[in-house]
Amino acid sequence: MKPLILVTNDDGIAAPGIKALIKVAAQLGDVLVVAPDSPQSGQGHAITLEHPLRLYPVDIFPGIEAYECSGTPVDCVKMAKHVVAKGRKIDLCLSGINHGSNSSINIIYSGTMSAAMEASIEKIPSIGFSLLDYSMEADFTTAKHFAKKIAANVLKHGMKDTLLLNVNIPKLPIEQIKGIKVCRQAEGHWAEEFIPNTDPSGRKYYWLSGKFTYEDTGEDNDIWALSNGYVSVVPSMHDLTAHTAIPSMSYLNQ
Amino acid sequence: MKPLILVTNDDGIAAPGIKALIKVAAQLGDVLVVAPDSPQSGQGHAITLEHPLRLYPVDIFPGIEAYECSGTPVDCVKMAKHVVAKGRKIDLCLSGINHGSNSSINIIYSGTMSAAMEASIEKIPSIGFSLLDYSMEADFTTAKHFAKKIAANVLKHGMKDTLLLNVNIPKLPIEQIKGIKVCRQAEGHWAEEFIPNTDPSGRKYYWLSGKFTYEDTGEDNDIWALSNGYVSVVPSMHDLTAHTAIPSMSYLNQ
Repeated sequence: MKPLILVTNDDGIAAPGIKALIKVAAQLGDVLVVAPDSPQSGQGHAITLEHPLRLYPVDIFPGIEAYECSGTPVDCVKMAKHVVAKGRKIDLCLSGINHGSNSSINIIYSGTMSAAMEASIEKIPSIGFSLLDYSMEADFTTAKHFAKKIAANVLKHGMKDTLLLNVNIPKLPIEQIKGIKVCRQAEGHWAEEFIPNTDPSGRKYYWLSGKFTYEDTGEDNDIWALSNGYVSVVPSMHDLTAHTAIPSMSYLNQ
Repeated sequence: MKPLILVTNDDGIAAPGIKALIKVAAQLGDVLVVAPDSPQSGQGHAITLEHPLRLYPVDIFPGIEAYECSGTPVDCVKMAKHVVAKGRKIDLCLSGINHGSNSSINIIYSGTMSAAMEASIEKIPSIGFSLLDYSMEADFTTAKHFAKKIAANVLKHGMKDTLLLNVNIPKLPIEQIKGIKVCRQAEGHWAEEFIPNTDPSGRKYYWLSGKFTYEDTGEDNDIWALSNGYVSVVPSMHDLTAHTAIPSMSYLNQ
């Protein structure tokens, strides 16, 4: 029996990246698509509690069962499991292919990676893919090649000690990629700026902007791998405990 | 010089929980409040990229500099640092007091904890507080008592090997609390259900519901601590790498 593969994303069901990922998934198993009906970049692990959600079948991927959902990427995964798949077991979740990097700290802000993480919390092995090209006209040839290779390998060998992979792919032709590197999340942050401006009514507003800043000198992290022509794979998890800090913070115990 | 303490939350600037936390903070330092202008529960680490943000001073806490922001809890922290505080160094960020538990996996969905995490990414020591009572009429006496004790201790001794604490407080009178326990995040997840219904136009909708399910048998985790009458403190972090999985996933290297 073919594996059942759930495909989702955060750029919305009409984004080129999800179309590329559906093509990859269709070569590996039966595909079920549940994706947001509008772009949801930067939604992080947001869920919709205060509003109802809509779920409609869409016929835009020939031969593929697909639904658009009015919620966040995490809502999409929850609806896929509990409303759409119901009794069917989802064997693998693929999220993306994101238009733009989700390396380093970006895993935390990313709807693509939060969708993948949600699936992993539900015990579904899950992989988020991102291409280092924000353009809506990005070329997904390299990304598709490595997405297929990695997903096929995971279906064959399984995941060990993790249920979640954060995969980023450099904006390079396939022949210039040096290989795949399993590594850790680089330490970095966004140096933000809020651009102030005035709306047509004369009221002030701010628009978030910023520059990613990289403070990590190691050669075992994802930013290093990507800068050096490798596809980066970071095994990730939802246990946020800083285990090493438990003894040192024990002065709070009483 | 008194420390500068940023206070934020996810239940919105008018929620009783933030008023309680501002009272605690005002006993420990100078207070700056930047909080959402509307409830933002379940927003996780969402940021606002597609829309402009509004920031207005509000005069609802006597003697306290306070602003309401139209964005998510994470946006509030970013605006506090980059627009409001500017040159002033924020010494501590306190988020909450949340109306409802943020123990176990809830740290990931919680706007309260994501705001605190954002501050920690910006290298600001940060503590999120949650009371195990969802009611808007909750009694914050016990929560205030322990929030003050923990925040004062952290200001005095500093944080070690972490910049982020997830503090949950049982719904109990102070004298029934057995103590404070520094522990790890319990493994658990939400067993979801989507309640279907029909809107006035006859279109179907779904509303997210669910029951928290706890699979962790250890006595060193936050759910155990809370169920046994302790205030739980989980040192947390933003490195999501599953470090132990790196060797075992190295079959992907090539």
